[in-house]
Amino acid sequence: MKAAIITIGDEILLGQILDTNSQFIARELTKLGADTVEMRSVGDTRAEILSALEGAFKIADTVIITGGLGPTKDDITKNALAEFFHTSLEFNPQVYTWLEELFAANPARLNAYNKTQAVLPACCTPLRNLKGSACGMWFERNGKIVVSLPGVPFETEYLLPAEVLPRLKQQFPQLQLSYQVFTVYDIPEAELAMRLEPFERTLSADIKLAYLPSPGFVRLRLTAKGQAVEKLPVATAELQRALTGLSFTLGEESTEDFCAKQLQKLGRTVACAESCTGGNIARLITSVPGASSYFLGGIVSYANEVKINVLGVNKKDLETYGAVSEQVALQMAEGARRVTGAEFAVSTTGVAGPDGGTPEKPVGTVWIAVAGPHGAIAKKFLFSRTRERNIGKASVTALRWLVQVVQKA
Amino acid sequence: MKAAIITIGDEILLGQILDTNSQFIARELTKLGADTVEMRSVGDTRAEILSALEGAFKIADTVIITGGLGPTKDDITKNALAEFFHTSLEFNPQVYTWLEELFAANPARLNAYNKTQAVLPACCTPLRNLKGSACGMWFERNGKIVVSLPGVPFETEYLLPAEVLPRLKQQFPQLQLSYQVFTVYDIPEAELAMRLEPFERTLSADIKLAYLPSPGFVRLRLTAKGQAVEKLPVATAELQRALTGLSFTLGEESTEDFCAKQLQKLGRTVACAESCTGGNIARLITSVPGASSYFLGGIVSYANEVKINVLGVNKKDLETYGAVSEQVALQMAEGARRVTGAEFAVSTTGVAGPDGGTPEKPVGTVWIAVAGPHGAIAKKFLFSRTRERNIGKASVTALRWLVQVVQKA
Repeated sequence: MKAAIITIGDEILLGQILDTNSQFIARELTKLGADTVEMRSVGDTRAEILSALEGAFKIADTVIITGGLGPTKDDITKNALAEFFHTSLEFNPQVYTWLEELFAANPARLNAYNKTQAVLPACCTPLRNLKGSACGMWFERNGKIVVSLPGVPFETEYLLPAEVLPRLKQQFPQLQLSYQVFTVYDIPEAELAMRLEPFERTLSADIKLAYLPSPGFVRLRLTAKGQAVEKLPVATAELQRALTGLSFTLGEESTEDFCAKQLQKLGRTVACAESCTGGNIARLITSVPGASSYFLGGIVSYANEVKINVLGVNKKDLETYGAVSEQVALQMAEGARRVTGAEFAVSTTGVAGPDGGTPEKPVGTVWIAVAGPHGAIAKKFLFSRTRERNIGKASVTALRWLVQVVQKA
Repeated sequence: MKAAIITIGDEILLGQILDTNSQFIARELTKLGADTVEMRSVGDTRAEILSALEGAFKIADTVIITGGLGPTKDDITKNALAEFFHTSLEFNPQVYTWLEELFAANPARLNAYNKTQAVLPACCTPLRNLKGSACGMWFERNGKIVVSLPGVPFETEYLLPAEVLPRLKQQFPQLQLSYQVFTVYDIPEAELAMRLEPFERTLSADIKLAYLPSPGFVRLRLTAKGQAVEKLPVATAELQRALTGLSFTLGEESTEDFCAKQLQKLGRTVACAESCTGGNIARLITSVPGASSYFLGGIVSYANEVKINVLGVNKKDLETYGAVSEQVALQMAEGARRVTGAEFAVSTTGVAGPDGGTPEKPVGTVWIAVAGPHGAIAKKFLFSRTRERNIGKASVTALRWLVQVVQKA
């Protein structure tokens, strides 16, 4: 199945916002076994949308459109779609009921603008949007599909897997694709690529290996299409063998989801004490619903006084060894355990940058410690030269290590 | 001047990489006063590139292409361009000299692959690339321009401003654009749109108003082109009047950058105590370099015991009013001031969701308090139905309110 993606919005063409919807949709379509043959971004006008739609309909079996649906956009996409499908806009009572349910907690917010969102091209199947007021729309003509989704990434990220992909699978049952994702930790992409050279040389030509690096880990994806699907289990086993000795997991869960699942299962309580990560570890942990069952709390001890007064770090040690030191990391982790009452705690103290680096402790130096009922240990890391990546990598590394220690306890 | 952008690469269509070149180029063209009328991403084949090129050449005066130039891409773009301009590929001695200079420090690396990079369509003007081995190419036909740039963002980010924009300015001297951004807080997009209806009705047709919503704020952008540039100051003043009574700033800084600048200037110290935001406020504050000069630290008091033992929240009040209450929010903020020694502190306690909501305190209910030398105040908010947005909105709202209180103190 060939797919085309159209994203609509003057703000994309002005360069004001980065179009992330296209990548998200392309990635999901790739996983489904579809071929995205074109992505196009056009402005908020009927003529541009119609022209893009006509062009895409010629080269693709499925066209996915995002944007131009909000109350302030004059519903330009709906008008263009109605024209394209030679139909009119009609009030849909079912969609209005969805809107009433969406605004149930705050009915006053359901204003005249929102009400127009229940007016849709007559021939479409509305797709219920639980994350916002613009519903998705599914159209069919001559066996080809057009899907319209909201421009807000958060809403498209909900609607595509919930309402669109299952329908596409039904419509195109021959789509076959199988893939296996690996998440590999603690090794740079280039080194991993060198290590996997022999594996790649023997890999069947109809199975593709992709590298997807993130701060703190590299994701590997083995993809097989059509007939090659049968060969995937063997390739997966071979890749597992090639990764022996490295730290990796099968699957593409985020670090925080993976860690949350482990902590939930283990039934132990954790806490954190953060200096250079500035609250990011706590944020990652609490981004997962249900975190309150194992996460008691955290201290962001940015100032030395907070390290001393709240976490009980020894003032002399701070002066002698500096804030970025094994001693301080250990005392921070122990302090977090003590003040929160958690069984385990992780701490970070480092030089996030861009300033504050010295020859002995350059930007990217981070001490991480984990404390538990049987004592505490600390390790020194050298991450990156940029603040954002240092915070990201230190947080992921600290969280994973904390969970490993809890697992072994 | 109308522009079209074409990005070439299978990895874009597979969703493996996010196309950031298009946004970068569009933003720079917008600043120049040009209209980007289309962005398109196509695969690594001659046919797809030619078809995109022909389509773009019809609707635009300038076409900017990135990608398909590297030695491993078989120089697919150069072949397509040579065909499009009815010319042949020829060795360019000037470009070869640039390559020799680029590899001067390591001449052994100037291999056969790189040498092919001096072979270009005969009719183009080569654009010197100081950041890589693939040069840019400038073509003209019938007063229209085609520019080819490397796919590596870092190289395009160098070549576009250094070699392309000055030439475009020369070619299209009438280009002119001016814009003004507003950041408006605490009002949903639909409500803001209703409020600005009268303003929009009187807005000159050649000035455009765009809405760019984010969690916690809506950005408005007034854009004037060509002759209309002169009218922008009046439209800006009128929009400011239309926004009277709302909380807004002129400019497009992120909330955290804006707050950081204010706090740096005010020279006061701050801290936070977070329950439902789970460390996200601390993370936002510490994401800005230099935060240590005003941010002392924070407590993520997820468990009630941490609220009681670390922040000194009264156990009786917790039991009587619940964790999500004015009393607890106030005591958390005061506790954060006390334990960190900061002059001001902000606190959050709420129901982030998806679970934990009750009829009296539904998901999205958040109490925020700010404490300072002259006492503490708390306010109740009802944000959203989803965890991620609740955390985002509560964090932005809390941070802004904290800064407002510090400003007034």
